[in-house]
Amino acid sequence: MAAAMIDNGVNVQALLAAREALKQAPEAAVFTWRATCKWRNGTHSRSTVQGFHGLGQEHKHKTEFTFEADHPEVFAAEDLGATPVEFVLVGLASCLTAGVAAVAQNRGIQLRSVEARLEGKMDIQGILGIDSDVRNGYEDIKVTFDIDADATKEEIEALVAQSQKRSAVYDIVTNPTNVTVEVNKL
Amino acid sequence: MAAAMIDNGVNVQALLAAREALKQAPEAAVFTWRATCKWRNGTHSRSTVQGFHGLGQEHKHKTEFTFEADHPEVFAAEDLGATPVEFVLVGLASCLTAGVAAVAQNRGIQLRSVEARLEGKMDIQGILGIDSDVRNGYEDIKVTFDIDADATKEEIEALVAQSQKRSAVYDIVTNPTNVTVEVNKL
Repeated sequence: MAAAMIDNGVNVQALLAAREALKQAPEAAVFTWRATCKWRNGTHSRSTVQGFHGLGQEHKHKTEFTFEADHPEVFAAEDLGATPVEFVLVGLASCLTAGVAAVAQNRGIQLRSVEARLEGKMDIQGILGIDSDVRNGYEDIKVTFDIDADATKEEIEALVAQSQKRSAVYDIVTNPTNVTVEVNKL
Repeated sequence: MAAAMIDNGVNVQALLAAREALKQAPEAAVFTWRATCKWRNGTHSRSTVQGFHGLGQEHKHKTEFTFEADHPEVFAAEDLGATPVEFVLVGLASCLTAGVAAVAQNRGIQLRSVEARLEGKMDIQGILGIDSDVRNGYEDIKVTFDIDADATKEEIEALVAQSQKRSAVYDIVTNPTNVTVEVNKL
């Protein structure tokens, strides 16, 4: 039983049980994820993440996660944190990587190492308002996975393909997502 | 000169000068942002951000930024970091917030405080593969800004609207972005 011996640290049994349970109670499958961002100075902000809603109740991460974001010195800023567009790359990288581990576990494939390198190409003529034909965001993102696993090249490629197919962030980035913005004056 | 007195910490003069310079050398406006993500165990990964390319040369952030990502305990994981989808909210929040500060500086509006609360609604029937009509990513994201500034409600709303118009992450989330994935077997 190769599948029973492998251990990528993903509790696939629990996830499969959750899937069965949610089929009976689909309203519990609606999650709300949250972040709060406070402006510090210039382009520097501090975001925190802790509470979320799902399975019909409130939850909290074990710790509050805090993130500094800023623009780099080449944009005449203080470089006190990663840029907002780099946070998107981190989200995409970590989503696809978690998916590779989960799919490998489900398929009985032992992973030894997984590394993803992401590059996002962006023409800043968009955000600077120089050329309205240039979009503000990434023109394209390239992801390169280097994976060491007990599997053939084809099986490893299939792991990544299945991870893409079920990745929340891959979907958010590659498809349009509605964003509503409300403003209160204090 | 109200505009000369206000200080949101954004060097608008440098940004306007950069805009003029890049009009003459548009090839320098092409940036490449990068992140590297290493799988740790289960759904836990560690991403790092430091180098980027732009203005025709390589740059490095002053420090290397490191981010732990994981799934929460309710997904039978270790909760050793924020979820990938929360990183997207942080990117969106910090991008819009930096934009509000920059636009306010350019318009001579003194900010006193800016806070953004983001909520992203996601039906996990998508990522669990229960219902193929349910998308994997956010169904919608709601952003609520609370802003204290020397300005009318209408002026504050216009700041946020202009920030949305020039935001890289708002564009990435609300519009489709091409992602190419390559896989190497080690």
